[in-house]
Amino acid sequence: MRIELLNTGSELLLGTVLDAHLQWLAQEMFPLGLRIGRQGTVPDGSPIRDLLQEAFARSDLLIVTGGLGPTTDDITREIAAELTGRKLHLHQETLNRIQERCRRRGFAFQERMMRQAMVPEGANVLPNGNGTAPGLHLPARDGIPDIFLLPGPPRELQPMAREHLISFLREKTVGQDRPECRIYRVVGMGESMLEAKVGLELSKRSDLEVGYCARPNEVDFRLIGPKEVLDAVEPLVLDAAGDHLLPMEDDSMEESVVRLLAERGATLATAESCTGGLLANRITDVPGASAVFVEGFVTYSNTSKTELLGVPTEQISAHGAVSEEVVRAMAAGTLAKSGATHALATTGIAGPGGGSEDKPVGTVWLALTTRGEGTVSWKQYLPLDRRAFKQAVTQSALDRLRRHLELSA
Amino acid sequence: MRIELLNTGSELLLGTVLDAHLQWLAQEMFPLGLRIGRQGTVPDGSPIRDLLQEAFARSDLLIVTGGLGPTTDDITREIAAELTGRKLHLHQETLNRIQERCRRRGFAFQERMMRQAMVPEGANVLPNGNGTAPGLHLPARDGIPDIFLLPGPPRELQPMAREHLISFLREKTVGQDRPECRIYRVVGMGESMLEAKVGLELSKRSDLEVGYCARPNEVDFRLIGPKEVLDAVEPLVLDAAGDHLLPMEDDSMEESVVRLLAERGATLATAESCTGGLLANRITDVPGASAVFVEGFVTYSNTSKTELLGVPTEQISAHGAVSEEVVRAMAAGTLAKSGATHALATTGIAGPGGGSEDKPVGTVWLALTTRGEGTVSWKQYLPLDRRAFKQAVTQSALDRLRRHLELSA
Repeated sequence: MRIELLNTGSELLLGTVLDAHLQWLAQEMFPLGLRIGRQGTVPDGSPIRDLLQEAFARSDLLIVTGGLGPTTDDITREIAAELTGRKLHLHQETLNRIQERCRRRGFAFQERMMRQAMVPEGANVLPNGNGTAPGLHLPARDGIPDIFLLPGPPRELQPMAREHLISFLREKTVGQDRPECRIYRVVGMGESMLEAKVGLELSKRSDLEVGYCARPNEVDFRLIGPKEVLDAVEPLVLDAAGDHLLPMEDDSMEESVVRLLAERGATLATAESCTGGLLANRITDVPGASAVFVEGFVTYSNTSKTELLGVPTEQISAHGAVSEEVVRAMAAGTLAKSGATHALATTGIAGPGGGSEDKPVGTVWLALTTRGEGTVSWKQYLPLDRRAFKQAVTQSALDRLRRHLELSA
Repeated sequence: MRIELLNTGSELLLGTVLDAHLQWLAQEMFPLGLRIGRQGTVPDGSPIRDLLQEAFARSDLLIVTGGLGPTTDDITREIAAELTGRKLHLHQETLNRIQERCRRRGFAFQERMMRQAMVPEGANVLPNGNGTAPGLHLPARDGIPDIFLLPGPPRELQPMAREHLISFLREKTVGQDRPECRIYRVVGMGESMLEAKVGLELSKRSDLEVGYCARPNEVDFRLIGPKEVLDAVEPLVLDAAGDHLLPMEDDSMEESVVRLLAERGATLATAESCTGGLLANRITDVPGASAVFVEGFVTYSNTSKTELLGVPTEQISAHGAVSEEVVRAMAAGTLAKSGATHALATTGIAGPGGGSEDKPVGTVWLALTTRGEGTVSWKQYLPLDRRAFKQAVTQSALDRLRRHLELSA
């Protein structure tokens, strides 16, 4: 099935809003064996006309996001109706819904909202649980592909797409192959080396798709194919990547950690210097985190490392705040203070300032303390920008805890 | 100038990578009075051919990202050369650079890396400070627009685009108008109401561009035009939006707060329950935060509210952890413990679980304590998903602190 995504919205082309629809929709469709083959973005207003018309000929399914609002720059509905030769009529149920929504939120009903209740003939109305504009499905006819018009705000689009678009596609693909995608994260080995060692050989197979994505300090090596094929070739990849392989991300790291902690009856506390709360934030992004996360300390200053966690001032002056001694004391202090079974600690130099020849920006020490087992500490050098550094450090901390919990089953 | 952006990369259409090139490039170009008029994404390999060819006719400048790597799925360079009728030749300086880079990183030079040193005739080579593949600028000729080929990884693309593409555009636009963009953030008033009150009137002006972007609990009302025009109409917008107006984000909220704290010689500590570290994380995302941020407490459990911040257990049992009494005690305890001049505290129900009829998911109490001045507390109801809730609560906390600091000048 040839699927094309059209995003409308001047804010996307002005850069005031980051468009994540492509990523979200692609991730929802992949498990059905479907991919978006092409995507385009145009500003609000008439440019959607050309893009829609071009796309008619080259696709079986068109997904259009945005331009369904009540304001005059939102004209996706009207243009889609015109180009598919459908008259618009008032959909009373939708109008009632919009008026009810206004009442509930204490907004006055505006005449111009009426437009959002206009529906092209033959279209299916997709109710909007989180906004006024309904989505629309214009079934394929006269050589024009199926068209789904979805609202731009992610909070409105996502539940609507799951309920209507994805379920429509699931029915369409019953019995079809459901390929898998495996991404091997390789550090310290360039992509050409990886291709020479294993990629080129695998890319000769017609039942496998091989891809590469270079990231800071990392190459993502991607294989797509039937599960059996992936299982069969996996040993070749593991052999080629060896020690350079990072753990696979099946679900997000923080979700795995929260799940494993809960399964083990374990609890966690954190002490963060350079990651400044990101570690606690990632853990508490997971629903149900409150059952396993006791507390977190963001000990940004040396004083707070000493006063809150009991790190001896002599240690800080002798070795510096970014040192193995201090990170171990932070983790141990956090375990003692919190009563948790596990504690993670980070201390490093996020930059851009604060580096030295000995300890350049990107240097970080981490520690994991486990009740009754003791402390492991490790150092990393991650010369990234501030946010990427914080992300990479928390990834390293969570990964170590995850592997530790997996082994302690 | 008609500018089009073409992004290549299977990972973008698989959703394994979020494409932020459009946003970043658009933000870099806007101050020059330039906009990207259209954007498209295709997978690695041959689909770039059609998209490039289509775009020749409708643009004056084409920016292509990705597909310059050493692996076989990267063919942007070769296709661009073919479509513009340019032969490829070996660029010795680039080859030297790549070999030198391999030596420095301890990677073996691979034969296939040679491709990255091939340059279409007449092209300008844009050296890559953070990767092997150079960018390329193919100057306009024979009715084909200027083409910039840039590497896909943001860390490689961004410095290269700043140095070559943006400076090229700056020269091209010398003396041209530099419009401004102002975004008014309006809460508790729908976009149709806003259009009726002020937007429709303003959209009649030919020297102004009016736009709307609906976000959770918020409408972004956007005006673009010459500075004088924006200054002249601003009072109308302020009048129409009234109390519904959120403070403008000239730079990000956390940057303002860190800057204001530093200017006032003030310091901050945080106590977070429902925001789970996001508040500290946002503050510590700002370079230089260590000068003003003392420490943060993520007191997720009731016990840690009591033990770390001294919140009386009787208060928690009498009023619940999500209550005005508790949030005020959290803020006051944080101020006392940290020695900071300002303390922010949050406690609420992020959901999906934990809500009740009295205190549904989305309920949150916040408090700000200022040394020598006392505590203000406020309640919000933000029925959003977990992450959006955390973001909105931290926004509310930072906004209150920012306004407080502005007044205490």
